[in-house]
Amino acid sequence: MTDAGRTAILRAARRAFALQPYAAVTLRGIASDAGVSASLIVKHFGGKESLFDRVADFSDAAELLLKAPNSELGRHVVLTLVNWRREHGSDLLLRVVFAIGPGDERKLLRERFHDQVVRSFAARLTGDDTAVRAELVIAHILGLGAAMTVDKTGPVATADPPLIADLYAPGIQSLIH
Amino acid sequence: MTDAGRTAILRAARRAFALQPYAAVTLRGIASDAGVSASLIVKHFGGKESLFDRVADFSDAAELLLKAPNSELGRHVVLTLVNWRREHGSDLLLRVVFAIGPGDERKLLRERFHDQVVRSFAARLTGDDTAVRAELVIAHILGLGAAMTVDKTGPVATADPPLIADLYAPGIQSLIH
Repeated sequence: MTDAGRTAILRAARRAFALQPYAAVTLRGIASDAGVSASLIVKHFGGKESLFDRVADFSDAAELLLKAPNSELGRHVVLTLVNWRREHGSDLLLRVVFAIGPGDERKLLRERFHDQVVRSFAARLTGDDTAVRAELVIAHILGLGAAMTVDKTGPVATADPPLIADLYAPGIQSLIH
Repeated sequence: MTDAGRTAILRAARRAFALQPYAAVTLRGIASDAGVSASLIVKHFGGKESLFDRVADFSDAAELLLKAPNSELGRHVVLTLVNWRREHGSDLLLRVVFAIGPGDERKLLRERFHDQVVRSFAARLTGDDTAVRAELVIAHILGLGAAMTVDKTGPVATADPPLIADLYAPGIQSLIH
């Protein structure tokens, strides 16, 4: 399978699991969305459960977002989010917002998000209120993704990434110490 | 109808129109979610189209969020969002994030959001890059709502509102001048 095919399958799976209850998701639907056959998905990803495991994993995203020293973390996070979106047409973390509501699998996705992303940021913080501050860092990050998703062709979608970082990173950086 | 009934219907309608394509939404489904009869909805709101009109309207939310001078707007916005959520169990703006994707009605909701919310904030700004800055103010706002929605019992959900404002408002306030 090509890298493009693999990417298309994972993107379709993220969308399906994020927007529908687990029980309603079908490999056939994901395959149709990705433009491949369901049997190709089974061959390469081993079925619905293991595909869900891949989608619920935020560890790569967390590693990417945290790959900077604290003194530059706000700026790094903004540039990483913006550049990822422009290169891949998707958001690193936003699917957790679509996993609200009841359902064990949605809950699992939110718990993994908390363990892999929120806690990793909290571990970088010192001083008072680290849990609140880590969650507010994540709030800033989710918000940037949400705004760029709502307005795909708006001013932020086309602005220079360094300008976006100049304007948006200070709010994040002020929470990191 | 009681205020509670009216609130329950509008909340169920917001959820339905935000999470499903317009054609898939039924008054029966909204009624069931709200714990009332479909005929009661028709009597008080006049059917699906006018109910959608109510849901797609962000003007009250914009007015509430902008009811402060620029020098205090960042703090006002944070406190308004947090207090609204604690009193009503819902978010003032977040439904626009669930209205992504194709469909004329979702597009209409996003356009109204832009006209009623993003532009109203932009009109308060002077200097360079007002359109980008207004959208980034909205990004901060959507992010706070998203984080509190994803983690309904987390540290931010229970923290003192003034502490949340101390920590989160500076990022918003830095964009307002």
